[in-house]
Amino acid sequence: MKPYKLKEIAHFLGGTVIGDPEAMVTHPAGIREATPGAITFLANPKYAPELATTKATAAIVGPDITEAPCALIKVDNPDLAFAKIVAHLAGVTPKPELGTHRKAIVSRYATLGKDTRIGAGAIVEAGAVIGDRCTIYPGAYVGYGAVLGDDCTLYPGVVIYHNISLGNRVSVHANAVIGSDGFGYAWDGTKHAKIPQVGTVKIGDDVEIGAGVAIDRARFGETVIGPGTKVDNLVQIAHNVKIGAHALIVAQVGIAGSTELGNGVVVGGQVGFAGHLKIGDRAMFMAQSGVNKSVPAGESWSGTPAMPHKQWLDKERNQKKVSGLRDTVKKLEERIAALEAKLGESEK
Amino acid sequence: MKPYKLKEIAHFLGGTVIGDPEAMVTHPAGIREATPGAITFLANPKYAPELATTKATAAIVGPDITEAPCALIKVDNPDLAFAKIVAHLAGVTPKPELGTHRKAIVSRYATLGKDTRIGAGAIVEAGAVIGDRCTIYPGAYVGYGAVLGDDCTLYPGVVIYHNISLGNRVSVHANAVIGSDGFGYAWDGTKHAKIPQVGTVKIGDDVEIGAGVAIDRARFGETVIGPGTKVDNLVQIAHNVKIGAHALIVAQVGIAGSTELGNGVVVGGQVGFAGHLKIGDRAMFMAQSGVNKSVPAGESWSGTPAMPHKQWLDKERNQKKVSGLRDTVKKLEERIAALEAKLGESEK
Amino acid sequence: MKPYKLKEIAHFLGGTVIGDPEAMVTHPAGIREATPGAITFLANPKYAPELATTKATAAIVGPDITEAPCALIKVDNPDLAFAKIVAHLAGVTPKPELGTHRKAIVSRYATLGKDTRIGAGAIVEAGAVIGDRCTIYPGAYVGYGAVLGDDCTLYPGVVIYHNISLGNRVSVHANAVIGSDGFGYAWDGTKHAKIPQVGTVKIGDDVEIGAGVAIDRARFGETVIGPGTKVDNLVQIAHNVKIGAHALIVAQVGIAGSTELGNGVVVGGQVGFAGHLKIGDRAMFMAQSGVNKSVPAGESWSGTPAMPHKQWLDKERNQKKVSGLRDTVKKLEERIAALEAKLGESEK
Repeated sequence: MKPYKLKEIAHFLGGTVIGDPEAMVTHPAGIREATPGAITFLANPKYAPELATTKATAAIVGPDITEAPCALIKVDNPDLAFAKIVAHLAGVTPKPELGTHRKAIVSRYATLGKDTRIGAGAIVEAGAVIGDRCTIYPGAYVGYGAVLGDDCTLYPGVVIYHNISLGNRVSVHANAVIGSDGFGYAWDGTKHAKIPQVGTVKIGDDVEIGAGVAIDRARFGETVIGPGTKVDNLVQIAHNVKIGAHALIVAQVGIAGSTELGNGVVVGGQVGFAGHLKIGDRAMFMAQSGVNKSVPAGESWSGTPAMPHKQWLDKERNQKKVSGLRDTVKKLEERIAALEAKLGESEK
Repeated sequence: MKPYKLKEIAHFLGGTVIGDPEAMVTHPAGIREATPGAITFLANPKYAPELATTKATAAIVGPDITEAPCALIKVDNPDLAFAKIVAHLAGVTPKPELGTHRKAIVSRYATLGKDTRIGAGAIVEAGAVIGDRCTIYPGAYVGYGAVLGDDCTLYPGVVIYHNISLGNRVSVHANAVIGSDGFGYAWDGTKHAKIPQVGTVKIGDDVEIGAGVAIDRARFGETVIGPGTKVDNLVQIAHNVKIGAHALIVAQVGIAGSTELGNGVVVGGQVGFAGHLKIGDRAMFMAQSGVNKSVPAGESWSGTPAMPHKQWLDKERNQKKVSGLRDTVKKLEERIAALEAKLGESEK
Repeated sequence: MKPYKLKEIAHFLGGTVIGDPEAMVTHPAGIREATPGAITFLANPKYAPELATTKATAAIVGPDITEAPCALIKVDNPDLAFAKIVAHLAGVTPKPELGTHRKAIVSRYATLGKDTRIGAGAIVEAGAVIGDRCTIYPGAYVGYGAVLGDDCTLYPGVVIYHNISLGNRVSVHANAVIGSDGFGYAWDGTKHAKIPQVGTVKIGDDVEIGAGVAIDRARFGETVIGPGTKVDNLVQIAHNVKIGAHALIVAQVGIAGSTELGNGVVVGGQVGFAGHLKIGDRAMFMAQSGVNKSVPAGESWSGTPAMPHKQWLDKERNQKKVSGLRDTVKKLEERIAALEAKLGESEK
């Protein structure tokens, strides 16, 4: 990263400098690890005390911070601003060379767009279509008839099964699998007979898929991941699931067959969804919840089985009070016994 | 798919047509997505209302459905019948060409059966034995001395470690791993010393393994998956686990070391089993359960820690009543106070 | 394995023979599966009754076992002793040949140490450094600028992203991914804008990583796995997580961003940690716990949300007593009603 003046950065971000606008920074860093020459940021108020002791030359902060031992660049959204700086100023991920590596294995019946990069050992089967400026890292696999839009990236070891379609600007991290058979069997009296999975998977524009994710193809029709949705590592998405736009699915979530998640849904890590549910737009789920009911739009649910978050908080609170309740009941029992004894006496 | 007459399909399925037996269908489809020319089916009663509005030309249904806006083919098991139709009539998954691709890397000390298909970039190590009609997709790896029966399929990126054995008709989906070292260490006073994992994994006939699954080799002896068992995506099976025949293990389940599951066991998604348990035949487990006890044959268990399903339902019900109980106790307290006051007065 | 006399094995282990020191054993086996000629062991007292019926020629046991139908070798730690015997006497995992396979793809700008083994189809990118005696199995990928210490092993399908560093004697099992992008986005008003993940991952000496594990690179700085730590299959480790030395992380655990685990922490299977927590040295977590608070050193926590194990046991016990409590309260209600009736009468 070449050195930048704080006033240049503030200009780029539309922010204002407090301190020396001519001070130079050379690299981004975390608030604790920062050394002189670094630019850091403060987004989470939890870390505010660490601003007082940071060694950074400058920090990007929100409107309510006014004092620090370093220069400040004030912006509306420090998190986003810092992301822009890192992307703009820092280095980029290394990629395979432009063109098709001589040890890539690309079918003569595949179609490649302009300025694609296909790494060594990558495989592109017959009928596949790779859009402009796509990057296929070494060892990735694009199956028969699969279609990638423009500007897609497949990291090493990614497997795209036959006839799957990806939109534009889709990134898929290493060893993720898209289009494996859904888990469907019918007992035929002696064994689980396989139900053919002849559908596909459709991934929208601007989707990012994490490492080791598994997304099954539909029984028929499509498994769908909507545009702008982000899926973290090791998530399981079963056949015929449909996820809307701009959802966030954190690591190790599992979504069973035919369940539909709306737009903007946010799902914490390790949550499980039963099959055939409908989850409304912008619903949110606490990590590790087990969801076995459909959920209306905009609600926050928690727990296993999941319930509205407030109800879950009540339940948790009540459980904590059970031991107090047992003490209360014991005391009431003694008071009743005393009353009974007295009344017995007074009757004598 | 070439067009078929309904009477041809009914004949193939052993079913009966209600409606025009000469009507033609050209493709399978879901009940909601179906368009004219499609054949659909109704297995789950939940979807019965949708039959009234389907656009399909025909639907495969069970014995109790008698009316619909489309033609009907009545059979005993519509789910299974539809699976047969899809498999029989629809296209099949594309495969590598017959023979060994010139960019596959097959040891001269490996043994290949008749009519095998070994894709580009696939690796078969010395001592491996590949049965007749096996399909090894590009990028799959068969380790030293591993043995595959006849008609097996390894999808791209599958890793079969050394000396693992697979039965006949075993399918393993992309990026699954069979035969990695079990997780075993002994503290030697200064560090976790590795316990060598010198056993193997034995996969029975007709097993299907999902994408991204990890099955560890035994410490010694065998980790076993019984014939006809189906394992969904991202399941973890530890060393020395033994699973019986015809079990269903849904996605993201984890089974700790040396636990044994009987025949026909059904395990919901994200369930965890502690080590060294014995789970009887046909036992069933609700999704996300945490099983830390052995379970007798035929029982249904739920919850964390898991308990018999009825007991779990009681527990859940009781928890919901705790807040009512607190109200009740509060009222009792008031009535006792009133009684005490009265009795105090009457004694005066 | 060549035959050994029991006195040779006892000498190697520093143990003493009870029985015929000249008896020969040829292979290790489990206590139940053992046949004549086998040497077995007893570490878990749970299996003590099986010693009485084992067919093994000899068993390695602890100080308190004195009688068995087979010869005994008494040692302090039978588990560790047996591990040593298996490692010393049994065969080893087959490896690629010394040198670089002619179908490996190693950049001319990569640096290889002495006596490395690089298998067919393995890929080593420009700027990567591979230490002495490393083994890279077929199909593994080492990204641009990644650094491996000495004596590391990457099994097939492992993906090491750019600029990641591994210490000495690190083993990574098949299809694990180290260095994928952390899951970080900032809402920019219309979409989740990607926060660049420009940090790295640093893996200490003697770490073992299981199959299918995903470890994300830091947003900036480092995601750290300390020396001697062992990570089981399908674990998710998010960006900027720091794990200390000699920790044990069992399968399918998920650790959210920036959480720090101390030295010697032990985490049961399927546990989830929220982000930004600090977990003290030697803390332990029961399987499936959901940890949303920082935990002091040395404590055992359980449940979701996790709490100290004793508190969790109380909670579980109280929950079981709720149904008894409801019966008690019902009876108290009757007694109060009786008292009220009596007092009413006595007032008349």
